[in-house]
Amino acid sequence: MRVKWIEGGVCAPIDFLASGLNSGIKPRKLDSSLVFSKRDARVAAVFTRNTAKAWPVLFAQKNINRKSHRAILANSGNANCFNGTQGEKAMHKTLALTAKALGIEPEEILPASTGIIGEPFPTEKLCGGIKRLVVSLSPEGSAKAAEGILTTDTRIKEIACEFQLGGKKVRVGAIAKGSGMMNPNMATMLCFLSTDAAISKTLLKSALQDAVKESFNRISVDTDMSTNDTVYFLANGAAGNSEIKKKDKDYKLFAEAITEICKRLARELIKDGEGVKRIVDIFIHGAKTAADADKIAKQLGYSMLFKTMIAGADPNWGRVVASLGSTRIPFDSSKLDISFQGTKILSNGSPINGIRPRLRKKLKVSEVRVDVDLKLGKGSAWFLTCDLTTAYVRINAWYTT
Amino acid sequence: MRVKWIEGGVCAPIDFLASGLNSGIKPRKLDSSLVFSKRDARVAAVFTRNTAKAWPVLFAQKNINRKSHRAILANSGNANCFNGTQGEKAMHKTLALTAKALGIEPEEILPASTGIIGEPFPTEKLCGGIKRLVVSLSPEGSAKAAEGILTTDTRIKEIACEFQLGGKKVRVGAIAKGSGMMNPNMATMLCFLSTDAAISKTLLKSALQDAVKESFNRISVDTDMSTNDTVYFLANGAAGNSEIKKKDKDYKLFAEAITEICKRLARELIKDGEGVKRIVDIFIHGAKTAADADKIAKQLGYSMLFKTMIAGADPNWGRVVASLGSTRIPFDSSKLDISFQGTKILSNGSPINGIRPRLRKKLKVSEVRVDVDLKLGKGSAWFLTCDLTTAYVRINAWYTT
Repeated sequence: MRVKWIEGGVCAPIDFLASGLNSGIKPRKLDSSLVFSKRDARVAAVFTRNTAKAWPVLFAQKNINRKSHRAILANSGNANCFNGTQGEKAMHKTLALTAKALGIEPEEILPASTGIIGEPFPTEKLCGGIKRLVVSLSPEGSAKAAEGILTTDTRIKEIACEFQLGGKKVRVGAIAKGSGMMNPNMATMLCFLSTDAAISKTLLKSALQDAVKESFNRISVDTDMSTNDTVYFLANGAAGNSEIKKKDKDYKLFAEAITEICKRLARELIKDGEGVKRIVDIFIHGAKTAADADKIAKQLGYSMLFKTMIAGADPNWGRVVASLGSTRIPFDSSKLDISFQGTKILSNGSPINGIRPRLRKKLKVSEVRVDVDLKLGKGSAWFLTCDLTTAYVRINAWYTT
Repeated sequence: MRVKWIEGGVCAPIDFLASGLNSGIKPRKLDSSLVFSKRDARVAAVFTRNTAKAWPVLFAQKNINRKSHRAILANSGNANCFNGTQGEKAMHKTLALTAKALGIEPEEILPASTGIIGEPFPTEKLCGGIKRLVVSLSPEGSAKAAEGILTTDTRIKEIACEFQLGGKKVRVGAIAKGSGMMNPNMATMLCFLSTDAAISKTLLKSALQDAVKESFNRISVDTDMSTNDTVYFLANGAAGNSEIKKKDKDYKLFAEAITEICKRLARELIKDGEGVKRIVDIFIHGAKTAADADKIAKQLGYSMLFKTMIAGADPNWGRVVASLGSTRIPFDSSKLDISFQGTKILSNGSPINGIRPRLRKKLKVSEVRVDVDLKLGKGSAWFLTCDLTTAYVRINAWYTT
C-alpha cells in the first residue's frame, strides 16, 4: 500500500471537525458525538440488513441519495429502536436542534444510535448536550467523538492515512465502535469515515461497499446482527484533487486505501469484542469454489465449539473437521490438511502424532491463525473471528442490569 | 397419550437385554455398552448429515437395509472418526469379536461411538471388555448401558412406556446421551430405542423419522453438528400383536408414542446440556408460513445473545426483535407481541412499562418459555434451546485436556 498512516482519526482530512461529550444518557461516560464537514460532502453508507431497523437507520436511508450532507450526530446508551413514535419524534427533535445550531438542514445530518433496544429515547438529555457538542467541534475532536459512540467496547478505535491522488495529497480518516452483536452483515457496529478527496458519489459508494464486503462483513463476535449497524463515508473534496469520476488508477488506489482502513478497523473491533482474549484468522484453501470456501470459513468462524477451543488454546482439529462437514460440502478426507499457527496437525487426513503439546503452547497468544486446505480446487476465503470466553457470557448475561 | 410410563428403559420390551461396563477406554467411568435382542429385530435408523462421518456410521449405513439385526455395540471415550484405516480395522475387529461371542454375524450388529475425533481407536481395550459385556447381558442392564455411552453428560437418560395395540400390550424403551455439539440434525447424540411391537420395517422407519423431526431436530445446545449422531430403533415383535402393516390407528398410536418418547428424551438431553442451568421453549405464532415460523424459532434458539440473556434471567426483548429481524423475514412491528413466561412485555409493538423487574424474577427458574406472535398468518413452530453459561465455555475450552 502506498499510504502513510497518520494521526487525527476522522478529523485528519481537511475541514472535518468533531466533538464528543456526556449528555447524561449514561451516568459518567461520553455518550454523544458530532462529526462535521465545513463544506458540503458527498456521502455513501452501508446499513444493517436486519428487518428490524432503528429510527436513525430508517431516516438516513430516506435521505441518503441527497446531493450532499454535512454532519453525523451519534449517541450511545440508547439504540432508538423499537420504542414507538416517541423514538421517531426524539430523533427529529434532536436533528432539528443540531441543524439549527450548525446553520444547516436536518436532512443534511446523518443520525446514528447504539445501545439498548426498546427503551424510550432520552430526548431532553441529548438535546441538552447538542449545543455543547456544536460549540466544542474541533479538528482535534476525533478521539472524543470515537469515545462518545462506545458501548461495551473497552477502547476507542480511530485511524487515518494519507496518499497521493494525481499529485495531490488526500487524507482518509475514521472512527468506529463494535463489541457485542458483531456479525457479518455488520451487527452492532458503527463506523464513520471521512475524506477530503474529491470523488463522485457513485464511486464513493462503490469503494465503500467493496471495502465493507472485505472487512466488516468478514468478522464475527457472535451470531447476531444488530438493528443499528451503520457505516457512513463523507467526502468533502477539500484536498483539491481532480475528481475521481471513473474506475481509473486513482480510484483503484483510493478503493484499496478504504479497504485497508476498514480491514484494520475490523481487526480492532474483533480484538475488542466482548470478552475476547484471542482472535483467529481463518484461511480456507483449495475449496472447489470461492463460495464453498466462504461457507466453510464462516461455519468455522461461528462454531461455538471452535471458538471455545480457541479460548482453551486447544488444537482440537476434530472440531474443525466436524464443522467443515456440517456445511455438507463434500471433501476428501485423504487430502485434508489442517494447520494451527502454520504448523500442520493433520496432513492428507492423517493426524501428526505428538504435535499437540507444542501447538498448545503456540496457541497461547493473542492472534492465531488456522489454515484448512481441501486440495479440491482454487476456492479460498478468509474470515476473522474470536474466542468464546466466560467473560463474553458474563458481559451478555447482565447487559441491561 | 394412552400410554403408561414404566421402568426398564431399553430392556422394558420383551426379550431385550443390555449391559454396560468399563473397558479401560476411560480411566474409571463406564465406556462400553451392549444392547441385544434375543430374536431377530427389524431396525430403523437416523444418522448425522455431517459430511464427515465416523466409521460406525459408515458401516451401519451400509447394512441398515438388512432384513434383521440383533444388537447394538457402543462405546464412549473415542468417536472412532477421522483416524484412518486403524479406526476402520478396529471397528471390524470389535464387531467380529462381539458377533462370535453372541453367536451372530457382524453385520447384525449396529455400532456406535462417541467421544474425541481423530484419535487412534483403543481396539484392545474395547476387545478386552466385549466378553464381559456379553456375559453380563441382563434384562436389568438398561441403566448400565445408558451409563456406558455418556460423555460430558452428568446423568443417564432412559425411558419406557407400554400401551395396547389391537388388544395386546406392547412396550417401547430407550436410552440416550447428548450434551455438547447438540444441534438440529442431531449433533453428538446417541439414542437407542427398542420395542417388542411387530411392525413392518417401512413403517418403523416412517415412525422414527417423524419422531426425530419433531424432537431431536428441534433442539440445540450449540451451533455444531457431530460426526457420530445416530438413532437406532429395534423392533423384535415379541409382544405378539398383529403386525402393523399400514398407517392405521395402531400405527398412529405407535407413532405418537415414539414421538412422545423422543420429545421427552430430547428435553432431558437439553436439560443436561453442557453448562445448562435453564432450558427455553420457544413458541413462534402467527408467522405467514410454518417455514417462516421455523426459521425464526431456530434463529432465536441459536442466538448467543438470546442464550446469554436467558442465563442472566433477563427479559431483554430487544434481543428477540433483533434476532427476529436478522432472519430478514418481514414483520409488522406494530403487531408484534413478545411474552416471557406467559406475561407480555411487548404488546402490538409497544413495550409494557415497569414489567421487567417482575419478569426477571419469573425467569429465575429451570424451564422458561418465550412466545413471539407476529399476527401475520397461521404459521407456528416450537424449538427447544438452553442458556449459554460460563460453565459451557469452561467445559468446551478444556475438553481434550
